[in-house]
Amino acid sequence: MKDRESIPKATIERLPLYYRCLDKLANFEDVDVVSSKDLGGRLGIPPTQVRKDLSYYGEFGRRGVGYDVFDLKRSVGRILGVDEVWTTILVGAGNLGRALVDYKGFEKMGMKLVGVMDADLSKIGNKIGGVEVQSIKKMDEIVSENDAKLGIITVPTDAAQEVADEMIESGIKAIWNFAPTRLHVPEDVTVRNEDLAIGIVSLIYHLSWKKRDEEEGK
Amino acid sequence: MKDRESIPKATIERLPLYYRCLDKLANFEDVDVVSSKDLGGRLGIPPTQVRKDLSYYGEFGRRGVGYDVFDLKRSVGRILGVDEVWTTILVGAGNLGRALVDYKGFEKMGMKLVGVMDADLSKIGNKIGGVEVQSIKKMDEIVSENDAKLGIITVPTDAAQEVADEMIESGIKAIWNFAPTRLHVPEDVTVRNEDLAIGIVSLIYHLSWKKRDEEEGK
Repeated sequence: MKDRESIPKATIERLPLYYRCLDKLANFEDVDVVSSKDLGGRLGIPPTQVRKDLSYYGEFGRRGVGYDVFDLKRSVGRILGVDEVWTTILVGAGNLGRALVDYKGFEKMGMKLVGVMDADLSKIGNKIGGVEVQSIKKMDEIVSENDAKLGIITVPTDAAQEVADEMIESGIKAIWNFAPTRLHVPEDVTVRNEDLAIGIVSLIYHLSWKKRDEEEGK
Repeated sequence: MKDRESIPKATIERLPLYYRCLDKLANFEDVDVVSSKDLGGRLGIPPTQVRKDLSYYGEFGRRGVGYDVFDLKRSVGRILGVDEVWTTILVGAGNLGRALVDYKGFEKMGMKLVGVMDADLSKIGNKIGGVEVQSIKKMDEIVSENDAKLGIITVPTDAAQEVADEMIESGIKAIWNFAPTRLHVPEDVTVRNEDLAIGIVSLIYHLSWKKRDEEEGK
């Protein structure tokens, strides 16, 4: 494998796409061998890019033949770490929390939800996705009992930093943050901000410039 | 403004962050003037990057003084197109659809939801976020009556392409797709895929390599 620090973020973000596609090929379509052209074609990624992305991690496939679907799926799964189980807690049992808990794709990616918490006492005891909502005061207990390392934050903006602090205190090492605010965390904690406003605004930006171009008769 | 095609995607994705921060400064903190250092500091973005991002679109602020918060907010809003109202439909009234409809931040970004639809007859008539769920058969009518240009897809994967086809047929020009599948659309339609699995897997990837490093005693 090449120096891990030098692997582009875009490559890392394409690996889950390859993994999901290979899983589909192996388990639902009974395909044994796939070329970079086929794999890329299904994902809208040029075959040269597919080969380049994989080449960061080693040599896979055979020239002129293609990749063994099962082998490549296993290798990519190992690279991603989704061949292991990652125990996860979620704080914020609102609609977004519910939507995430219900999303079946996450389990395939190694995520195992071991606790859902909320500060709102009226939500405690509700079941979402088969998991009972518990008080946020149980966080320490839930995290240590399950050795959870991953935390998902789906609380309102104002509560996000406090929840993050509590997560880190209890041993969480990676946070998936859906609150539109910047979290302050120690260096050894990884944060990924999933800021949904960026999605809608980038579409509005494109629509808006298209409209301006049309008005100017471009 | 520089050639629009040459502006990095990362810059475009930071603009909504600046906009939201400026809005907060103007409306909740009564701040009149902000430096690139202050603005960047609040967002975890280096001041040089802030200045570079803005410089793609023109000259803002005064050296040694900073930016007028109100002016810059208005300018960035105009660049993004969020100073206009963009009528939007959403198809798929499940938990994720509900979460998006409830998200107050979108209205600030110019999005106005004019219709929520679902194929599931049992959901029709329910209200989510104050909007009544209607049959997907009403799409044409809703889109043309409201001149909607933006469509949000929160249906299961198998239904996503069909919904996208119907959206495009009825006049939608930009699609925000939450189904983890690649949509095939004509060239003049913009798609943004919000693939949530990528978020969780990129965190798992980091956790997993951290663990391997620790095991190897690095």
